[in-house]
Amino acid sequence: MSILEAISAKRDGRANTDAQLCLIADGASDGSIPDYQLSAWLMAVFLNGMDDRETADLTMAMAESGERMALDGLPKPWVDKHSTGGVGDKTTLVLLPLLAACGLTVIKMSGRGLGITGGTIDKLESVPGFRIDLSPEEMKEQAREIGLALTGQTPRLAPADKVLYGLRDVTGTVACLPLIISSILSKKIAGGAEHVVFDVKCGSGCFMKTLPEAEELRTGLVEVGQKAGLKVRAAITDMDQPLGHTAGNALEVKEAIRVLKGEPGRVHDLVVHLAGLALESCGAGDKADAASALDSGLALAKARAWFKAQGGDTTVFDSEDWQTAPCIRIIESPAAGYVSKIDSQAVGKLVIRLGGGRKQKSDVLDPTVGVELHVEIGDKVEVGQPLAAIHSSSKIEFEPFIQIAESPVEPAPIILA
Amino acid sequence: MSILEAISAKRDGRANTDAQLCLIADGASDGSIPDYQLSAWLMAVFLNGMDDRETADLTMAMAESGERMALDGLPKPWVDKHSTGGVGDKTTLVLLPLLAACGLTVIKMSGRGLGITGGTIDKLESVPGFRIDLSPEEMKEQAREIGLALTGQTPRLAPADKVLYGLRDVTGTVACLPLIISSILSKKIAGGAEHVVFDVKCGSGCFMKTLPEAEELRTGLVEVGQKAGLKVRAAITDMDQPLGHTAGNALEVKEAIRVLKGEPGRVHDLVVHLAGLALESCGAGDKADAASALDSGLALAKARAWFKAQGGDTTVFDSEDWQTAPCIRIIESPAAGYVSKIDSQAVGKLVIRLGGGRKQKSDVLDPTVGVELHVEIGDKVEVGQPLAAIHSSSKIEFEPFIQIAESPVEPAPIILA
Repeated sequence: MSILEAISAKRDGRANTDAQLCLIADGASDGSIPDYQLSAWLMAVFLNGMDDRETADLTMAMAESGERMALDGLPKPWVDKHSTGGVGDKTTLVLLPLLAACGLTVIKMSGRGLGITGGTIDKLESVPGFRIDLSPEEMKEQAREIGLALTGQTPRLAPADKVLYGLRDVTGTVACLPLIISSILSKKIAGGAEHVVFDVKCGSGCFMKTLPEAEELRTGLVEVGQKAGLKVRAAITDMDQPLGHTAGNALEVKEAIRVLKGEPGRVHDLVVHLAGLALESCGAGDKADAASALDSGLALAKARAWFKAQGGDTTVFDSEDWQTAPCIRIIESPAAGYVSKIDSQAVGKLVIRLGGGRKQKSDVLDPTVGVELHVEIGDKVEVGQPLAAIHSSSKIEFEPFIQIAESPVEPAPIILA
Repeated sequence: MSILEAISAKRDGRANTDAQLCLIADGASDGSIPDYQLSAWLMAVFLNGMDDRETADLTMAMAESGERMALDGLPKPWVDKHSTGGVGDKTTLVLLPLLAACGLTVIKMSGRGLGITGGTIDKLESVPGFRIDLSPEEMKEQAREIGLALTGQTPRLAPADKVLYGLRDVTGTVACLPLIISSILSKKIAGGAEHVVFDVKCGSGCFMKTLPEAEELRTGLVEVGQKAGLKVRAAITDMDQPLGHTAGNALEVKEAIRVLKGEPGRVHDLVVHLAGLALESCGAGDKADAASALDSGLALAKARAWFKAQGGDTTVFDSEDWQTAPCIRIIESPAAGYVSKIDSQAVGKLVIRLGGGRKQKSDVLDPTVGVELHVEIGDKVEVGQPLAAIHSSSKIEFEPFIQIAESPVEPAPIILA
């Protein structure tokens, strides 16, 4: 069997065998298959697709291309979550301590942000002292102690995915469902989880613009995940407006802490929903248990313990007077009426311009900057009422990103499916 | 404009612009576009195709990616020929001196063999002293003196094709008509020819197995060639049996010399047909003129002058006692009847096994070995009559490649269209 046979089979619309997909994943991770052959195969996959069996086999091959976290010895159930990414998505910061507070063991690897989608690692790095480079051994030790550990992605887990993902980015083969699904799932499996909750974002502020597209991704994640031996739950949630009231690294950590302290709203509701799915998957409770653990302050206490364990400054829980930007500009409503649109794309791009997001992987971020939203879609507003605040390092001009309509507007629910 | 846009356009089934194709050709030749992006684009072209305009633009972009032979100063017309390659195809060795004997200026770059298809350069290298590394300046000087020069491919002409061809070989994107056509034509244009005669092989012993496939390639070569400013004629010729009576490097040179000396048969007929097309294209004569220049010995004299000019030992014209193999094994007919099949694929593979052809580019050839055929399809044979002789460096076992039928068999004509 050769890589040329694997490329030719996919080129001719035939399915790749498990052995061929292992050859590709192993060859990508050890460098024995050159980039140009991998990228020819990626384009053939983009154009001719892969069935669920192939996607599951590729997932397992990539998961096994490096080390796998061995969580044995830690209390079960072992849980992970994954969001497909959107503007203002700080869910992980609240959900992880909530799940740990409910008695689950949570081990998670998170990424950095690229483009308009923020990354959990960038957000946590805005907290002074927070370590995002735990070794697998440190992860396990910390999870044993407090039920929760999070780190940046390590090249030791699913190295094949790292190579293929890098190539997809420069060969026009990113938007391919089987490759997206196997990339996501392989990292979850290598990370050792048994139960995974997926938050599939849908709307103008993320990759899946329409409900049918999001449904397709959700179905793929669930079905392929199950084939690959995971217990999977997935929600489709709204990303037509930014999630919650902030976009920007320190601003989002501050909002997450407010939610942990009891602030109601869409972030609270989304976190409780996702936690409910995780508890149901594990047979360890339901949404009501999640709500009670959040509202009682158990999750907040777990978050403090988590930040402390990873070296983070826990005074961030006591005041919002940290990582503040020098310029704050208030945007006032130009008219009376109802908020009809908050353009997530525009907000995401503005955060990048402010220095809070990356155009290129090498960009260094300013943790203090971002957009604070005082309204949500559907809110009634008066002329001159503050709609948003722009936190920046210096004065900046920008296009308006909030629209006001004369008649009442019904916002999309946070949980779409 | 970026390479990613060019890849995405082709991926999505849109046409590439002239500017995009120039970007690709220039980026391939100067190394500014990495292999992995070129190969993703090649696979997208393989699966989504290119129209004639794109193929012509790519042809010109590749032709202009390096130097172009400037033939000005040499007597017109300037002629080149190209064969799509087959087992036992020694046409060039006879056709080139014939065209020069007819007063045309012939400048040709030839390749080495790979797989079952032999290469003119390998055949000529079997002649002691024959130089196949003439510089463009030497080519021009020799063509001025004797009307004819041939050399191996130089990296100075159409370097983009060299890069893309190398990638196609290892990414499963060889069998793609627009890429085949632009590869062939770009080298012809960079070589400076105005008139080109194509010999499109058709049958079990070459790439195009059926007449419709060969017709498609011929149409593409003619139409795209004309768009790119060439005057093109093309024949489709039979490759269901090896061409002529030999396959193997020195053996084929010996046969070519016999044809130059007047040996009748399929090689003779094919060469006269192709020469007729070239003369008609140039308005310099027809098939009858070609036949007369061959049969009168003018072409033989030109061949001697050619071999001498390139340093080749001209005693090869006087005797066949050079580059001879130590073992010659005669294959006798197992039955009386009619030759119904001579398996070209099997003959080509046997020549490789004997050491006369390449499995890999780096293989070093034995010029002495090969297969000599004493019969053609349709010949009546007796039991025990010699059918073929295997020339080898040591004893070798092989499967029979000639079939004998009880009833008479009509061979395909050498010229199919």
